[in-house]
Amino acid sequence: MSVSSSRADTTDIPAYMQALGRAAREAARGLRRADSGRKNRALLAMAERIDASREAVLAANAEDMQRGRDAGLDAALLDRLALDQARINAMIEGLHQVAALPDPVGEIDGLRARPSGIQVGQMRVPLGVIGIIFESRPNVTVEAASLCLKSGNACILRGGSEASASNAALSECLKAGLEDVDLPAGSVQVVATTDRAAVGELITSPEFVDVIIPRGGKSLIERISREAKVPVIKHLDGVCHVYVDATADHEKALAIAVNAKTQRYGTCNTLETLLLDAPIAEALLPELARRFAEHEVELRGCERTRAVLPQVIAASESDWGEEYLAPVLAIKVVDGVDDAMAHIERYGSQHTDAIVTQDYSLARRFMAEVDSSSVMVNASTRFADGFEYGLGAEIGISTDKLHARGPVGLEGLTTRKYVVLGEGHIRQ
Amino acid sequence: MSVSSSRADTTDIPAYMQALGRAAREAARGLRRADSGRKNRALLAMAERIDASREAVLAANAEDMQRGRDAGLDAALLDRLALDQARINAMIEGLHQVAALPDPVGEIDGLRARPSGIQVGQMRVPLGVIGIIFESRPNVTVEAASLCLKSGNACILRGGSEASASNAALSECLKAGLEDVDLPAGSVQVVATTDRAAVGELITSPEFVDVIIPRGGKSLIERISREAKVPVIKHLDGVCHVYVDATADHEKALAIAVNAKTQRYGTCNTLETLLLDAPIAEALLPELARRFAEHEVELRGCERTRAVLPQVIAASESDWGEEYLAPVLAIKVVDGVDDAMAHIERYGSQHTDAIVTQDYSLARRFMAEVDSSSVMVNASTRFADGFEYGLGAEIGISTDKLHARGPVGLEGLTTRKYVVLGEGHIRQ
Repeated sequence: MSVSSSRADTTDIPAYMQALGRAAREAARGLRRADSGRKNRALLAMAERIDASREAVLAANAEDMQRGRDAGLDAALLDRLALDQARINAMIEGLHQVAALPDPVGEIDGLRARPSGIQVGQMRVPLGVIGIIFESRPNVTVEAASLCLKSGNACILRGGSEASASNAALSECLKAGLEDVDLPAGSVQVVATTDRAAVGELITSPEFVDVIIPRGGKSLIERISREAKVPVIKHLDGVCHVYVDATADHEKALAIAVNAKTQRYGTCNTLETLLLDAPIAEALLPELARRFAEHEVELRGCERTRAVLPQVIAASESDWGEEYLAPVLAIKVVDGVDDAMAHIERYGSQHTDAIVTQDYSLARRFMAEVDSSSVMVNASTRFADGFEYGLGAEIGISTDKLHARGPVGLEGLTTRKYVVLGEGHIRQ
Repeated sequence: MSVSSSRADTTDIPAYMQALGRAAREAARGLRRADSGRKNRALLAMAERIDASREAVLAANAEDMQRGRDAGLDAALLDRLALDQARINAMIEGLHQVAALPDPVGEIDGLRARPSGIQVGQMRVPLGVIGIIFESRPNVTVEAASLCLKSGNACILRGGSEASASNAALSECLKAGLEDVDLPAGSVQVVATTDRAAVGELITSPEFVDVIIPRGGKSLIERISREAKVPVIKHLDGVCHVYVDATADHEKALAIAVNAKTQRYGTCNTLETLLLDAPIAEALLPELARRFAEHEVELRGCERTRAVLPQVIAASESDWGEEYLAPVLAIKVVDGVDDAMAHIERYGSQHTDAIVTQDYSLARRFMAEVDSSSVMVNASTRFADGFEYGLGAEIGISTDKLHARGPVGLEGLTTRKYVVLGEGHIRQ
């Protein structure tokens, strides 16, 4: 068995990260050659290895948990860090699911004959080496590794330091799975140091890394974007809007607003500001207030909202543009779709915005003109999700415009190159 | 008529660039609403305005030329700077061609019903605001503006300072054309200062600019990539290879090698290193030498090449990886496709690489495993070009992997957002 990363010399961080980088580049060459069958067998072998190593993984996790409790981590962090048999089952199930997904690599689109006689098409290929930086959730180690491997990419994973023992134990399983099917061990590498300088090296080494995907809080992502010399696929805020137009079906509007806000509070596709067209506001607001009260959602309204619902807290300027991630909702009465779109343009985060309307032309305008990664008509913003969209998997949601926008599945981890077929063709 | 940018106050560079940025953002909103017909009418109006302003444009260009000669610009730079009636005709013809291209904006791909009942698809939309930084070629001003406008993007153009008078005159025509069809003047803005600080502002303002496309020499592009806080679609070197496998048809191999090297020397898709499979080297080298001698191409060979052709200059390590852009060719004898691909991986620039072979499996392997933006079988590398590929236009060739790879046409100036259609659907 190869030297596991957990036993590698990590005292010289730049040298250590360069060694990982070189191994990843070399592995990426091997992965370009690996067919779907072999990648799938590796995923299933990893699942078996995890299944056979439950005790070791849980023991390592117990170490992390003890260290976390000693360090005074809060309950939410400890919950994300914790592994048990059910979570291990979910990891194994996830590996099987990714193995069952169609492989995007190698697909050739639009191969067409050109007047010169050559045929030109675009072939989907892996990006190469993907660096993923994430918080202390050991299940992300397995999930990220599986999506990168399936899409033919080598990956370098840097999880939160609180999960280092769990990640090292899982890393052993992943490497053993690769070895079982003769894929290079460098295909999946877990950074075996908690030194922050390792992240600095990772995000500034375009010679080794093709793209960085940070998964975590806004400040982590902003810092990485600022310092990276490697392209970053990033996910910042979700300040999502639902605009209810005067022609909306009332019951649909109520159902969508309540679902978009309350189905889950902590997700990026949760509704944060509800925009109501003036002619419909008076009719809808009392029933909205009643339903949100049932869910104990605090409302913060503009002056026109408070003219109908005096008990509602007055929204301040900072409420527009706030990502509450909590049972709090801002409500504003607007004058038509242009006013609504201007508000979304000014305060939104280009994540997910919806219109509720029965007007055909307004629906078309909202879809074309709102510049967000997901734009919806008569549907809850909570649908903005890789699984709901049918991607089969999701490594994150991109709020960038270039390359991948919105939920990122396997296809977002690939790129397309041109392929040209000739029979001795030369350019005249 | 609005205040033209050439008369704007450019003493406070940050304030001036912010004003351009705000106008571009505002214009981008208007362009999202503009249908194809109006964008095409704007392009034709621009063409008419240029046609009607030939004297003013040529007079402005004469100013630039005089200043250039006084400053001692070399003949090549002066040639690129110069306008005449024929070049103005070409600009006008270019505007007509872009107007005739299909509009990528608004196309919805793969709208499919999901088990939840929603329909999900992806709509092609403009990127928003594009910053283009280029050298002193006034025709690029018109070409870049036309491609950005057709793809629904506002643009901020920063041409070389030597062409400032020509660009200002052309800018007047472009703005007048926009006004003729009531599109916002901020849709196309030419930076009216030669102060380098303007470039610094442009490339570090993600709030105003969605992507930067630098067109110019390698050092310009490297500097911009290093300093940019906005995503850059960049085009670095083209160190292109042709690998001739032992099974290759000799005549095809000779024709492709000679065409790829000699059809034009200064382009990025020109062959720079020829790789010959050992079993075929002895048979091909004498005839290759004869044909390249006819074109006065200097050959630099490895030891095994020189064993067959002793008169050839010995290649040094720096010849592999050199982008000559000149009648010089490096030749290396290799041992099979793996050796060839290892050489390309080590010394290539991931631009365009070709194999000449009659072997089906080798052709497939080369296509799948060579990680370049264009990979060819039995065709000249010189085909790597937006027009040859049928894109209809080309704003550049991307050597990046993310977003756009290879020749970039109108589609590369757009992105895709998700659209979701429901009838009151909520997430369970």
